[in-house]
Amino acid sequence: MRDSNREWYFAERPEGEPSRDCFELRESDRPEPRYGELLVRVRYLSVDPYMRGRMRDTESYAEPWEVGDPMRGGVVGEVVESESERYEEGDFVTGEGTWADYSVLDADDVAPVDPDVAGLPAYLGVLGMPGRTAYFGLLDVAEPKPDDTVVVSGAAGAVGSVVGQIAKMSGCRVVGFAGSDEKTDWLTDDLGFDAAINYKTTDDYSAAVDDAAPDGVDVYFDNVGGPITDAVFTKLNLDARVAVCGQIAHYNDEGVPTGPRKLPMLIAPRAKVQGLLVGDYATRFGEASEQLGKWVASGELQHRETVVEGLENAPDAFLGLFSGDNIGKQVVQVSE
Amino acid sequence: MRDSNREWYFAERPEGEPSRDCFELRESDRPEPRYGELLVRVRYLSVDPYMRGRMRDTESYAEPWEVGDPMRGGVVGEVVESESERYEEGDFVTGEGTWADYSVLDADDVAPVDPDVAGLPAYLGVLGMPGRTAYFGLLDVAEPKPDDTVVVSGAAGAVGSVVGQIAKMSGCRVVGFAGSDEKTDWLTDDLGFDAAINYKTTDDYSAAVDDAAPDGVDVYFDNVGGPITDAVFTKLNLDARVAVCGQIAHYNDEGVPTGPRKLPMLIAPRAKVQGLLVGDYATRFGEASEQLGKWVASGELQHRETVVEGLENAPDAFLGLFSGDNIGKQVVQVSE
Repeated sequence: MRDSNREWYFAERPEGEPSRDCFELRESDRPEPRYGELLVRVRYLSVDPYMRGRMRDTESYAEPWEVGDPMRGGVVGEVVESESERYEEGDFVTGEGTWADYSVLDADDVAPVDPDVAGLPAYLGVLGMPGRTAYFGLLDVAEPKPDDTVVVSGAAGAVGSVVGQIAKMSGCRVVGFAGSDEKTDWLTDDLGFDAAINYKTTDDYSAAVDDAAPDGVDVYFDNVGGPITDAVFTKLNLDARVAVCGQIAHYNDEGVPTGPRKLPMLIAPRAKVQGLLVGDYATRFGEASEQLGKWVASGELQHRETVVEGLENAPDAFLGLFSGDNIGKQVVQVSE
Repeated sequence: MRDSNREWYFAERPEGEPSRDCFELRESDRPEPRYGELLVRVRYLSVDPYMRGRMRDTESYAEPWEVGDPMRGGVVGEVVESESERYEEGDFVTGEGTWADYSVLDADDVAPVDPDVAGLPAYLGVLGMPGRTAYFGLLDVAEPKPDDTVVVSGAAGAVGSVVGQIAKMSGCRVVGFAGSDEKTDWLTDDLGFDAAINYKTTDDYSAAVDDAAPDGVDVYFDNVGGPITDAVFTKLNLDARVAVCGQIAHYNDEGVPTGPRKLPMLIAPRAKVQGLLVGDYATRFGEASEQLGKWVASGELQHRETVVEGLENAPDAFLGLFSGDNIGKQVVQVSE
């Protein structure tokens, strides 16, 4: 175990698109866990689109980061020092830590990880926050019924890929938007999506939805916003449900973005549109983890992670989310 | 009883704002009721914003009118000839008829009217479709809780004025947007609204909402759209509910209007936005009519109608809806 620790700090609020200048890597002594805490050697850390919101100086659901704060997020790693009776050295755990070689976590706030069920990165994706977001967002907010047509934006991402597969298990026709042929092929060939639209090579999203969803759209699970969402909203069926999970197309906008007004489109179909945050389902995380774990173990639910190697490259992994570099969950491998 | 009948026809689809050229008054013989039908001498007819949608050549919840069709809408009047055992001459009824001196209605599709409970025009407003829209839209879609702050746009209109009063009875703080000082005075002085904002004399809607709703907005009942709605959406509290009942600011738009994107605003508050149509509650109209009738009879629910006299002026009454000429329900008096 090294005595020194590298850790990323939030160095500068971005205007518009963030850059590496927003982050600063500092070296310091390895931290010491206090009573009830664990020292975790980070194996993988998570970068997520919602973190862009924490970079703003405005109150939102996640507290804004202050310049000078350490970068925080989901990590999975090995306990190397335990000041808690609940875990011992060598255990693998996941929880919210820091972008660092070594991170101190409260033993009460971590969950155990079984490396035999799935690889460690899966605990930041399908078996972590993104998987739970997909589970509750689709099943509780969007409430798919058999034979519904479900459209998912950001369908090859950590959340969207799980949404689409659960929708298939629910008996739905599933259409995904994604940003490369490799992604759309993965959706249709491996994950069982009925159709997938490469939004970077398609001009007319409206016509593409008509082709892929000839009976209209009953459920729209939106991770993206922008022109994809504009097109899908014109296809909503009676009693359609829209789960607004993310709007990554707008996270780097300064000021309020404009677009086609959507409220007039909601009246005829009596559509319901709802924003969601996975934290609201915290009391039911056990249910989701159990079900997602079963599906992963049985092979019914596939998952994929895109791994950037090296703690020093964590900012690039984060920035790549906004250009869609990742297929499935984007993680950073910090140590072997 | 006259032998001739005047009746308005749909003469021309409008582009943008409708004009009198869209309507044509024709004279013909008084129609004859067939078996099961009633000949009704129309006393009052209803003009409603939703009719603008029927003037478009696009399928929506209400079938589009064809050029040459008679103008249809809610009427209240006296049965002057009955070919049904359910009603006799001299009975007062309400239902969907035509903009005419005499209109033939199916006895199965009308409801009896008791002129002793409320004046006849009330059966086109608080005791008719607008009242039921307010009742179900507020209580079932927006689900107000005591101490919620409820904002209503079009608050001095047929629907909005009822929404605000039911919200007060539900224990809410109620704020209304309306288009004249006479209207805002009516809301606060007579209907018990906690605050009212004259949107025609107020520059900064956002600041006005902050003043009138210092604890934010839990429920927004939207009849209007446009800049009022843009401002209210920035004030939504956690678990806010938005009932999209109407969007009159956009009914005369050609093409798709644009404005600030609202989906990104829904995530942090986990807000729910839902379009509504009163027809979905048809099986529960009896419940609404009974409750609304009780409230009207007890004086707990006040109502007001703006009356344009003369069948020949029906188009003007309709066109006046878009400039906000009406306080409460706009009706046309066809006969004494």
